[in-house]
Amino acid sequence: VPTCERYAVRRLPFARLEDGDVAFFERLMPGRVVTGEEEVKAFNVDWLKSVRGCSQLVLKPQTTAEVSQVLRYCHEKNLAVNPQGGNTGLVGGSVPVFDEIILSTALMNKIISFDKVSGILVCQAGCVLERLNEYLEEQGFVMPLDLGAKGSCHIGGNVATNAGGLRLLRYGSLRGTVLGLEVVLADGSALDCLTSLRKDNTGYDLKQLFIGSEGTLGVITAVSILCPQKPKAVNVAFLGCQSFAKVLETFTTCRAMLGEILSAYEFMDEKCMELVERHLKLSRPVTGSPFYVLIETSGSNSTHDEEKLSNFLEQAMASGLVTDGTVATDDKKIKELWSLRERITEALTHEGYVYKYDISLPVGKLYDLVTDMRARLGHSAKSVVGYGHLGDGNLHLNITAESYSHSLLDAIEPFVYEWTAGCSGSISAEHGLGFKKKQFIQYSKPQQAVVLMQQFKAMLDPKGILNPYKTLPSAPKRSLC
Amino acid sequence: VPTCERYAVRRLPFARLEDGDVAFFERLMPGRVVTGEEEVKAFNVDWLKSVRGCSQLVLKPQTTAEVSQVLRYCHEKNLAVNPQGGNTGLVGGSVPVFDEIILSTALMNKIISFDKVSGILVCQAGCVLERLNEYLEEQGFVMPLDLGAKGSCHIGGNVATNAGGLRLLRYGSLRGTVLGLEVVLADGSALDCLTSLRKDNTGYDLKQLFIGSEGTLGVITAVSILCPQKPKAVNVAFLGCQSFAKVLETFTTCRAMLGEILSAYEFMDEKCMELVERHLKLSRPVTGSPFYVLIETSGSNSTHDEEKLSNFLEQAMASGLVTDGTVATDDKKIKELWSLRERITEALTHEGYVYKYDISLPVGKLYDLVTDMRARLGHSAKSVVGYGHLGDGNLHLNITAESYSHSLLDAIEPFVYEWTAGCSGSISAEHGLGFKKKQFIQYSKPQQAVVLMQQFKAMLDPKGILNPYKTLPSAPKRSLC
Repeated sequence: VPTCERYAVRRLPFARLEDGDVAFFERLMPGRVVTGEEEVKAFNVDWLKSVRGCSQLVLKPQTTAEVSQVLRYCHEKNLAVNPQGGNTGLVGGSVPVFDEIILSTALMNKIISFDKVSGILVCQAGCVLERLNEYLEEQGFVMPLDLGAKGSCHIGGNVATNAGGLRLLRYGSLRGTVLGLEVVLADGSALDCLTSLRKDNTGYDLKQLFIGSEGTLGVITAVSILCPQKPKAVNVAFLGCQSFAKVLETFTTCRAMLGEILSAYEFMDEKCMELVERHLKLSRPVTGSPFYVLIETSGSNSTHDEEKLSNFLEQAMASGLVTDGTVATDDKKIKELWSLRERITEALTHEGYVYKYDISLPVGKLYDLVTDMRARLGHSAKSVVGYGHLGDGNLHLNITAESYSHSLLDAIEPFVYEWTAGCSGSISAEHGLGFKKKQFIQYSKPQQAVVLMQQFKAMLDPKGILNPYKTLPSAPKRSLC
Repeated sequence: VPTCERYAVRRLPFARLEDGDVAFFERLMPGRVVTGEEEVKAFNVDWLKSVRGCSQLVLKPQTTAEVSQVLRYCHEKNLAVNPQGGNTGLVGGSVPVFDEIILSTALMNKIISFDKVSGILVCQAGCVLERLNEYLEEQGFVMPLDLGAKGSCHIGGNVATNAGGLRLLRYGSLRGTVLGLEVVLADGSALDCLTSLRKDNTGYDLKQLFIGSEGTLGVITAVSILCPQKPKAVNVAFLGCQSFAKVLETFTTCRAMLGEILSAYEFMDEKCMELVERHLKLSRPVTGSPFYVLIETSGSNSTHDEEKLSNFLEQAMASGLVTDGTVATDDKKIKELWSLRERITEALTHEGYVYKYDISLPVGKLYDLVTDMRARLGHSAKSVVGYGHLGDGNLHLNITAESYSHSLLDAIEPFVYEWTAGCSGSISAEHGLGFKKKQFIQYSKPQQAVVLMQQFKAMLDPKGILNPYKTLPSAPKRSLC
């Protein structure tokens, strides 16, 4: 696996797994301890097949008490642990680097409660996002987040990585919608902050520290989350724009005219659409433009929403912002249009090796990075594409090549990070740092912030057993706490 | 001042202010050091006049560098500091308990930048909320929070206390809308997390720890905040309901029918309206109901919004949920209706001494606490009233008496906290714990969470100089870190 060579790390002096350890776990959770080489294999490699660990043990607890017992034991024995949800992460955060024990939330998939008056769902960490959404839809609600990996990703992993996705523009981030968490700390003690209150100002908001900490500060075992009502009317428009400037102007116009019903504003360049068509055989409803945007509205009154949308489209066409387009109001066509956007990641993997970047930038500069990168790399890259959540200032920059090469990576990095830092952007908008990006944190965070993060890590996980080699650069040698 | 007797605390062994200290500060910020007894007086007492400190010194820095120098000096000399914004807090968090130096943000009132494309405002901590909102309105935006104290409260104080207020139902909490913070830590070092990005997943979200920490972990010096567009149409309905059950059913109905344009759902009981009429001479548009609700819609199309609202009102009247009501669409009448709700706090102060409680509860049980308290206190209280942000499950329970009495307080506390804990509610939904509520934290937080909070405090402020005696109960004697 190429990236491991690049990001050379040394195994920390954790204990090695012994037969007695496995025997302990088998007594603790009989039948839910995976040791066979073949069976463990799938847990060792990430979805992109870009990083691979060599764990010999997967544990599948069903309860918080079991997670507590596992961590208490590992803490005592100095065994490293890799918490794993649906293993859909894109930065190598969800698989072991060496022989860490994999703690999978796959069997922690119970819905604990749902309150129809408040819209508050409480569930175990291993619930699959799409299953939760289906459950909620039956009751007239939806999950406040949605992403391409919804069919496999776990809500615990979503929270641990502060997943963004397609609904953030409308419903905000998990930092607002997650109301409570239950977390097991490195020493096995359970921290119960699983409240179901919209507002609670009694002391520091501890749960925030675990949101986005990528399993390095504690293992999330249950989540309380505020879910919005299912919109009565959904419309999707897929439009072609002749320049990125027009993509931006279309955004400003639609935000003003669609207002509170705008629920997504995604963009993608022509190359993305070519790849989706070529590799996945999806048919394209609109062609011949260098840029495309997908606009979604979600509202409570279909007549009003359609009127707002058609007023907007009329103006966008009349003023030349948009040159071509199609609109969908029925579920099937809406899904087809969303596929064109959601399946870009998948189409890219058919190209060969993919260098993935997930960047936050001031929205006006979003596509300059793609243009600059394309010019810089010339023919050494197969394709350089840009797409993403324009409404949130989030660019997904992807570069493909037949296979991995050191020299191409050297041409991309640290250029891409320096470029981003030059615009005060973030080198990880929503994917996290995981294993692959952790040494680049200083491009987006001042040294003092990194030191403070290391102090939190040292305080909450003094032995460093939780998801080692992830998120934070190696601690400096001097004492931190 | 009555509450000080109740919450007996002992002065911690901080250094006493000496002439040399004052001389140092006068060299650092000439003309912005307040020492006269009369001039300092107003900074020593809270808005409710319920707690009073005896500080002899107020410092008014203008820059982050000055705040750094002040804290570095105080840290070195072991001088305690009370950070103070607009001093509008309701739990005694914003005034000194003993002789802490008051660090006022009053002169840190500069707007640093505003970006019209993204709606992101960056400003110093001492900007007054209402001034910021006026500035934004000129550019077609609004602040994502609004509260009764807007004319005096500072944005830094709002963030430090995680203020909720009247727009939370629509725009979410500050945990989602605050994008970045600049904070000066106890030792004087400045932590720059003042990013202006909608999304940033590079490491732990440090700023969250300072949001709602009431000045005990650091002094917020600047804020970056995401502001929504100013709604094109605002409507307010003021309705009477014959029972609290109907208030709840009206909420469910209006949430379904108004959907994305619902921006506030406030309730108040008849007694509140009587007090507002009697003490403030406000005229009441609707009378004769035991409960009233104020519903606000904010949207982008006045025709659509009015249609949605009138459909809802028709149904609410036809089904007997609502028995009487009035609707406002022009600014002046909207302000008058909002006054009936916003000025309840002020009206209550005319009654004598006010015992204030700010409780989060499952929405269905919200008024049971008022009823139970009224029955419990009988004639020993002058009035027992309930109002608040029903849409957020937030009750403001207020009890008045001619003057403060120990025995009445004993009848209220800890009953009110036990009742709340029995429903897994929060004893402080939005006001914070400050000085007056800190010893009750265990009613809403498990012991382990409190210990963890104390560890964070010990790590970030090892000498405990920042806003001492606030938020957290006194640390147990054993070492914490």
